[in-house]
Amino acid sequence: MINILLSGCNGKMGQVITRLSDNFPELKIAAGFDINNNINNPYPVFTSLTDCNVDVDVIIDFSNPKAFTPLVEYAQEKHLPLVLATTGLAAEQINTLKTTVAGRIPVFFSANMSLGVNLLIDLVKKAAKVLEDQFDIEIVEKHHNQKIDAPSGTALAIADAINDSLDDKYEYMYDRHSRRKKRSKQEIGIHAVRGGTIVGDHSVIFAGNDEIIEINHTALSKEIFAVGALKASVFIASKKPGLYSMSELISETN
Amino acid sequence: MINILLSGCNGKMGQVITRLSDNFPELKIAAGFDINNNINNPYPVFTSLTDCNVDVDVIIDFSNPKAFTPLVEYAQEKHLPLVLATTGLAAEQINTLKTTVAGRIPVFFSANMSLGVNLLIDLVKKAAKVLEDQFDIEIVEKHHNQKIDAPSGTALAIADAINDSLDDKYEYMYDRHSRRKKRSKQEIGIHAVRGGTIVGDHSVIFAGNDEIIEINHTALSKEIFAVGALKASVFIASKKPGLYSMSELISETN
Amino acid sequence: MINILLSGCNGKMGQVITRLSDNFPELKIAAGFDINNNINNPYPVFTSLTDCNVDVDVIIDFSNPKAFTPLVEYAQEKHLPLVLATTGLAAEQINTLKTTVAGRIPVFFSANMSLGVNLLIDLVKKAAKVLEDQFDIEIVEKHHNQKIDAPSGTALAIADAINDSLDDKYEYMYDRHSRRKKRSKQEIGIHAVRGGTIVGDHSVIFAGNDEIIEINHTALSKEIFAVGALKASVFIASKKPGLYSMSELISETN
Amino acid sequence: MINILLSGCNGKMGQVITRLSDNFPELKIAAGFDINNNINNPYPVFTSLTDCNVDVDVIIDFSNPKAFTPLVEYAQEKHLPLVLATTGLAAEQINTLKTTVAGRIPVFFSANMSLGVNLLIDLVKKAAKVLEDQFDIEIVEKHHNQKIDAPSGTALAIADAINDSLDDKYEYMYDRHSRRKKRSKQEIGIHAVRGGTIVGDHSVIFAGNDEIIEINHTALSKEIFAVGALKASVFIASKKPGLYSMSELISETN
Repeated sequence: MINILLSGCNGKMGQVITRLSDNFPELKIAAGFDINNNINNPYPVFTSLTDCNVDVDVIIDFSNPKAFTPLVEYAQEKHLPLVLATTGLAAEQINTLKTTVAGRIPVFFSANMSLGVNLLIDLVKKAAKVLEDQFDIEIVEKHHNQKIDAPSGTALAIADAINDSLDDKYEYMYDRHSRRKKRSKQEIGIHAVRGGTIVGDHSVIFAGNDEIIEINHTALSKEIFAVGALKASVFIASKKPGLYSMSELISETN
Repeated sequence: MINILLSGCNGKMGQVITRLSDNFPELKIAAGFDINNNINNPYPVFTSLTDCNVDVDVIIDFSNPKAFTPLVEYAQEKHLPLVLATTGLAAEQINTLKTTVAGRIPVFFSANMSLGVNLLIDLVKKAAKVLEDQFDIEIVEKHHNQKIDAPSGTALAIADAINDSLDDKYEYMYDRHSRRKKRSKQEIGIHAVRGGTIVGDHSVIFAGNDEIIEINHTALSKEIFAVGALKASVFIASKKPGLYSMSELISETN
Repeated sequence: MINILLSGCNGKMGQVITRLSDNFPELKIAAGFDINNNINNPYPVFTSLTDCNVDVDVIIDFSNPKAFTPLVEYAQEKHLPLVLATTGLAAEQINTLKTTVAGRIPVFFSANMSLGVNLLIDLVKKAAKVLEDQFDIEIVEKHHNQKIDAPSGTALAIADAINDSLDDKYEYMYDRHSRRKKRSKQEIGIHAVRGGTIVGDHSVIFAGNDEIIEINHTALSKEIFAVGALKASVFIASKKPGLYSMSELISETN
Repeated sequence: MINILLSGCNGKMGQVITRLSDNFPELKIAAGFDINNNINNPYPVFTSLTDCNVDVDVIIDFSNPKAFTPLVEYAQEKHLPLVLATTGLAAEQINTLKTTVAGRIPVFFSANMSLGVNLLIDLVKKAAKVLEDQFDIEIVEKHHNQKIDAPSGTALAIADAINDSLDDKYEYMYDRHSRRKKRSKQEIGIHAVRGGTIVGDHSVIFAGNDEIIEINHTALSKEIFAVGALKASVFIASKKPGLYSMSELISETN
């Protein structure tokens, strides 16, 4: 049985994880940490990490970038594997994770915690390698009308993954309006559709001579990110220090 | 039997019309006009309109905007109904058509000659009226990598049709990258995907609270524009002077 | 303020309606009826209709076909407009509604309570009329892997609506496997995809000569059916006896 | 320069290959074989293989299953690599290819000659391995209304590839109508949409808990099969005897 300390337990995603953890018999949320203690949970909640007196095996963090420093210090001090599922981390925070923290404890970090999106990225890399030079690549993502950033972090992660896996480097094209120029071979068009309550769609289009391949991912709810974090906590519980991501989790379980 | 004078008969679309006209027993291409006379056609071809000595009932024009003035003069002089299927006409040419020419002869003009696209526009107008205020509208169009303009004329015609049929007016949003702002209710996102040899896809997305309606048109070849022009010539042959479009053709035949 | 009696208030959909009713300032759930009284609701719940002593203006029923007879009698006795959102009614129950009940009280009944699906049906009827004879019609619906019936009631309602609006009648084709025959002009293919937790997608494809029109509806949650029922209750509150459906609601509000 | 003998040169696909071969500077169609000699080609055409007196390096066959035996004998006798692109071969013919012919000469054979479809199959196999047990798999294919067989050979090849790559074996489900049963974990639904002039779409859907992955291939013309055959002829020209397919061609060129 893996005992989890859930950081950000009283946030939206923290509550989704709390609810879904019942479906994972191999783990248990043993304690929570949140600066707000206004929700009744089936585990003790601490408003300060130093107060936490429960023995745990893994930390899942779904809080926010401000909690990063104390959380990372606590995890290192206690030698606890850490699943970092918080979005919006700053570049230097991610860098600290990779260069320092991962040298001391096992760290699990992915731009998108869903199994499906990470598989999509793997498939897209494979397709890009085969179709390079012969097919044009375009990405269309769709999200709800409250989303502030565009394109989505996941769309950019897909485009970066293509660039990392190919010799040629592509530029990202966000707007073709009024350019009056033919498409260049060296560009990836990235389009951000916004509307209603769309949870998150990502579509990668490979368009060639008279044939088109499309790889799509559709999220129907945010639960998939919670499931990903719970699976990651099982995966990382017994690992050596190092940096892990969904990509390794997918490879190992197949 | 409707006898047609085909202007631009030796261009790409002219040749498609020539080939497909055999499928329409009620009409016949009786003569062609083209400044290039390098192709063998089953009808006489004239390099100047004034040389044309064949009796015809309708003119179909699939040439280019430069031929506009002499063609329109010839049609008026001979009192011949005119199907104008040339794309890229200037705003003042379209204006001349509507305000002057259509007062003297029957003129058929549509931004897109396919039956399907024009039906799509009708459906979109109906949907926009019902869903107004409650759903966000976005347009995604896809074309081949040689297309110069973006978005397509048809995508703009769809957006304009929405604006014409609603009280509220929408702004067109071509690029959301790095704005870091929520979507406004008063915008229509328009996205131009370019790749491979895609003939032409148009997708209109209505995204609301937990439901999405999408209306799509896919062109598999340019033949659909030729078929539209041939149907238009039958439709307009017996009409009074005035301006006609695919919208009327669709209404009348249903 | 419209006061509602919610029949089936403690079922899954009843609870969704309870939650969403807060978004409709013009109405209020004043009382509930359910044979199970195990949930705490912000309104009194009666386990028998005859015990209900609260004054209401409309009944919404989201219970099950077994409750049909007492409910319909109660509504007639009290002269209360009735929104019947229960699915799986028997043919004779629907017939009773149409021929008897609707003569005495206003009855709102639709095979699918979502605004979007009913708009889709209207659009499909219009498209079918225009494209008749020239385009082949196919329906693909997708639902979760726990759904027992196939195709969905909504897919059949779409196909029936096409048949009702055309002179020609189409047969429904559910399986082309091993027939080794070309498609007939007189058939509509209906395909039931089942997988995961898909809430409900319906796609109607019109495939013609080198062009395809597709009209799709995607449900992201069951809330849309609750919203439809709440809107229907406002719509029907002031109506004369008669049978009403989403189609009238859509027309009237546009 | 690779010299090609094109069997079936005067058929539809033979003519497409003839036209497209100009785009491949590394090869040349040096001779044709067809029982009909009614077309003017830029190479000599023989109505009998034994009459062919032109030196060639590879044979491409796009004729029909009846020509199989003499063609295969001729290729073996002359020790010529053979690209078999004819569809509809009988099971015993395919068996002969694999067990006998491929022992003597290099044989290239794929159920579908397009690069894109074969990449789709590779991607689907990879996805099926990762998602096994957690996602339901469904295949939707779309073809024109003149196609006789259903589902398409390619749809079956995709389903077979999934079964070959997994331990569990799936049954194919062609019709869910009126079964009134929940979907079994052990089935792959296969749906054959027919309409208009659709060249060929294949869509593989992986539907899981609140997320869906879809991998689609769309053919816009039959040229892609000709291009595949021409590439295969370059690939196989320098190979040892054995059986080769698009899968090897894709691996080797990446």
